Amino acid sequence: MEFVKAEIPVLSNAKSHRMNPLVPLVLPLVNPVHLDLIPFQRERLGLKKGFLVCNSNCAVVGVVVPLAALQAKFGPIVECEVFTEQAISGAGYPGVPSMDLVDNVIPFISGEEEKLEVEAQKILGCLNDGATGVDEQAELRIGATCTRVPVTDGHMAYVSLRFKSRSRPSAKQAKQAMIDYQPELQNFKASFSGSGIKVFMDEDRPQPRLDRNTCNGYTISVGRIREGQKDDHFDIRFAALSHNTVIGAAGSSILNAEVAISKGFV
Amino acid sequence: MEFVKAEIPVLSNAKSHRMNPLVPLVLPLVNPVHLDLIPFQRERLGLKKGFLVCNSNCAVVGVVVPLAALQAKFGPIVECEVFTEQAISGAGYPGVPSMDLVDNVIPFISGEEEKLEVEAQKILGCLNDGATGVDEQAELRIGATCTRVPVTDGHMAYVSLRFKSRSRPSAKQAKQAMIDYQPELQNFKASFSGSGIKVFMDEDRPQPRLDRNTCNGYTISVGRIREGQKDDHFDIRFAALSHNTVIGAAGSSILNAEVAISKGFV
Amino acid sequence: MEFVKAEIPVLSNAKSHRMNPLVPLVLPLVNPVHLDLIPFQRERLGLKKGFLVCNSNCAVVGVVVPLAALQAKFGPIVECEVFTEQAISGAGYPGVPSMDLVDNVIPFISGEEEKLEVEAQKILGCLNDGATGVDEQAELRIGATCTRVPVTDGHMAYVSLRFKSRSRPSAKQAKQAMIDYQPELQNFKASFSGSGIKVFMDEDRPQPRLDRNTCNGYTISVGRIREGQKDDHFDIRFAALSHNTVIGAAGSSILNAEVAISKGFV
Amino acid sequence: MEFVKAEIPVLSNAKSHRMNPLVPLVLPLVNPVHLDLIPFQRERLGLKKGFLVCNSNCAVVGVVVPLAALQAKFGPIVECEVFTEQAISGAGYPGVPSMDLVDNVIPFISGEEEKLEVEAQKILGCLNDGATGVDEQAELRIGATCTRVPVTDGHMAYVSLRFKSRSRPSAKQAKQAMIDYQPELQNFKASFSGSGIKVFMDEDRPQPRLDRNTCNGYTISVGRIREGQKDDHFDIRFAALSHNTVIGAAGSSILNAEVAISKGFV
Repeated sequence: MEFVKAEIPVLSNAKSHRMNPLVPLVLPLVNPVHLDLIPFQRERLGLKKGFLVCNSNCAVVGVVVPLAALQAKFGPIVECEVFTEQAISGAGYPGVPSMDLVDNVIPFISGEEEKLEVEAQKILGCLNDGATGVDEQAELRIGATCTRVPVTDGHMAYVSLRFKSRSRPSAKQAKQAMIDYQPELQNFKASFSGSGIKVFMDEDRPQPRLDRNTCNGYTISVGRIREGQKDDHFDIRFAALSHNTVIGAAGSSILNAEVAISKGFV
Repeated sequence: MEFVKAEIPVLSNAKSHRMNPLVPLVLPLVNPVHLDLIPFQRERLGLKKGFLVCNSNCAVVGVVVPLAALQAKFGPIVECEVFTEQAISGAGYPGVPSMDLVDNVIPFISGEEEKLEVEAQKILGCLNDGATGVDEQAELRIGATCTRVPVTDGHMAYVSLRFKSRSRPSAKQAKQAMIDYQPELQNFKASFSGSGIKVFMDEDRPQPRLDRNTCNGYTISVGRIREGQKDDHFDIRFAALSHNTVIGAAGSSILNAEVAISKGFV
Repeated sequence: MEFVKAEIPVLSNAKSHRMNPLVPLVLPLVNPVHLDLIPFQRERLGLKKGFLVCNSNCAVVGVVVPLAALQAKFGPIVECEVFTEQAISGAGYPGVPSMDLVDNVIPFISGEEEKLEVEAQKILGCLNDGATGVDEQAELRIGATCTRVPVTDGHMAYVSLRFKSRSRPSAKQAKQAMIDYQPELQNFKASFSGSGIKVFMDEDRPQPRLDRNTCNGYTISVGRIREGQKDDHFDIRFAALSHNTVIGAAGSSILNAEVAISKGFV
Repeated sequence: MEFVKAEIPVLSNAKSHRMNPLVPLVLPLVNPVHLDLIPFQRERLGLKKGFLVCNSNCAVVGVVVPLAALQAKFGPIVECEVFTEQAISGAGYPGVPSMDLVDNVIPFISGEEEKLEVEAQKILGCLNDGATGVDEQAELRIGATCTRVPVTDGHMAYVSLRFKSRSRPSAKQAKQAMIDYQPELQNFKASFSGSGIKVFMDEDRPQPRLDRNTCNGYTISVGRIREGQKDDHFDIRFAALSHNTVIGAAGSSILNAEVAISKGFV
């Protein structure tokens, strides 16, 4: 916060201030509009040019972008069961000892599951009318299990979800919704201008080594989109891959900065 | 079936006859009582000494044993969301090319998800009164996602489950139920006589390389047993590890044979 | 050979004809001049437009380019002890089962060690005066041990070598010779025009994952260049990394084709 | 040394005192006779019951045991070129970050190559007549290259060697010498009493995951024993595997202690 107080615009990948109500938590492929919270933040903190914007935990990214695409067409999602297979680079360097990940997986990542739930609710929330806060999507419940696998880069997220509306979409419709996704980001001058989602039809894709660099790591690769059986609690299941050190970290900060510039906050 | 017709007792690890109503599908840590279907099978097939007993798909094992332990104390489970990280040896040899599993995971295993659902219903079903068939536990719905990871042996299964009764157990009670599990197998003379479940308290266990050989691979290692939050659709979540080539395959066949001998069917 | 007989120019990555005296075995970073054997090949085979040129085994590449650079400055090398750690992609697809390379290495690759010796002698040989054959560098003896490691792409070669001249170069001089290497390829219009060798000063480089894509895989990464101790049989030791599917395979064929065009053979 | 001064017998796996002329460096499968240096050590250090014995670096073990077996039959070896593929556990815990060993090898291990040469000379040396020191086998020159590979346990060593005598043995004779090896250890009451070498005939063995636990990790697995070609500088090449945390570390200390007890030093 010292930088912010020194009137420096800060776009942070750290976790400390993400859930602060004055701080926009922005995933550029989903909610750049939350940057409009900056004037209120400045007012409250007595800032003129400085501000603080956070981007999300890397594991959230692959979940939230497809959710945003689906909610745009089929209305609110009320429940998600999420399972992740996360890459080593998510733990920084030196991070996980190699002794722990040869011929092995680790069924737990400290703090990750909690972050996934609360950050998703904030990112998918709505900026309120006065642009003085974000109404979180509190009715979205996420149950998460996060594991570490011997992959260098690229987090896999496997999502089972249920819509509020019981007129549930088919797998085909869900696929189309993802293909058609038009993130607000496209309206800004940013170094990435794609739709943010690539849908795979082969049932054994996406895979981390093959697909993590799709669009230089700025795009979520989604596959295995399938509908629940007749009495299934969940309506849709899918697998998503995101490059955890690009769109899941520094890449998001860069895009957020570009939007902030585009909006005149810098 | 040629062997069976030749009056040879067959204990098979193959998938072909598992769902045949005349064939007991037996996971020795759960339902050795289903072997009592053998007299009716013999009657129908005109056999005197031969019979066919199947053991289950390797991915089912780690899910069904803990479910059996929980159902024994808290009544029927009606819903399960299952996610697996399966070892390479499950695909046989040569199986998966190494090119596919260095720095990678594969989000799909052909046929595995379907087997998981139907086989679990049959194993957890009840032998009917006349011992002429198994009433499957049809109200148990399982949604499964099966993935392949670069681990030699040991399948991980991550399970989120919901009981029929809404007086749901706490994590502590669920742990105790697993610890207290007394499989019927213990009443027979078999080469393995443990409880079949080892509960880990450390939140980063079980892990395949460290724990797959617990009790020589005849025991399911369970960890991360946790209860759902207040409004959570699921009551309990846990992680289970089973040695896919021991209790998940040949080891089950051996135990089934030993019970069959013990019951006088051989 | 059917294609060749049909007057089609063939640049082959297969092993069958590499040691045929009529066929140039060309590593474009070392001996494109051997392409001048084509007229004699055509004469003998009664061809007008067709020809056959081979490129070398992938494991040879990382060894021979640095040897060429050293020989250019310090004269003939008479002995080499070579050890390789070869990538999975060298075995094609499906190639090595993943079961064999998780938590493991394989100390043997069938046929590889023999190829290394004979192909190096031919590539480093001289086109004779009439351009009717290649005088192999027969006094260069190579002892090789080839192993397979769990790396997707990039062969490591560790080389210990002895010059004919006993006024042996220092490590510093050997490094400089590699840095100064000017392959004849630079005189032709080809899609790659670098020196073909990148020398690393850090003693833990090159590494396959980090360095295999240097210059898009067309360059040999060399490190750990060190001189022998006083009574050492070997004068210089080094480690070299080559991208086995680029400069070690298709990439060489492409460069060879470009030189052949440039020389007017196509 | 504080423990030693306190009259406590110390069997150390640490590197600090290995090359101290007063300290026996003992690989129990090779030179337990060096323990007879203890009386002189005590005399010099003014000790009555304490002493210090070291065991060797883990990478040396797989090289020196086969050398000892060969020297026992064919006389002194004067030159060795050694290449190692070392396991992660050799670096302790946390040791090597997993980021460095997924889809990768590391061509350098700090300090390892130097240790290999000097420790081999001392272990293979002779206790002098007065048992006041070890005459190192100084004429044995070892050139070493040590690399790290993604294997949990089990160091591979690939050795090319030259005997002093030019009447060099055939591969068959070298194999037989290894099979016939009778380490002095067998004369003592120790928890391991095998020959210390297992010779493999399959050319793709030994492999770390399959063979490291041979004889509970107390035996060196040797394979690929082959003779040099006619003009080859080296007479014999072989591949050896040793379990680096058993015979390469604690296991050696245990055996050394048992021999020390057996000899009455404890």
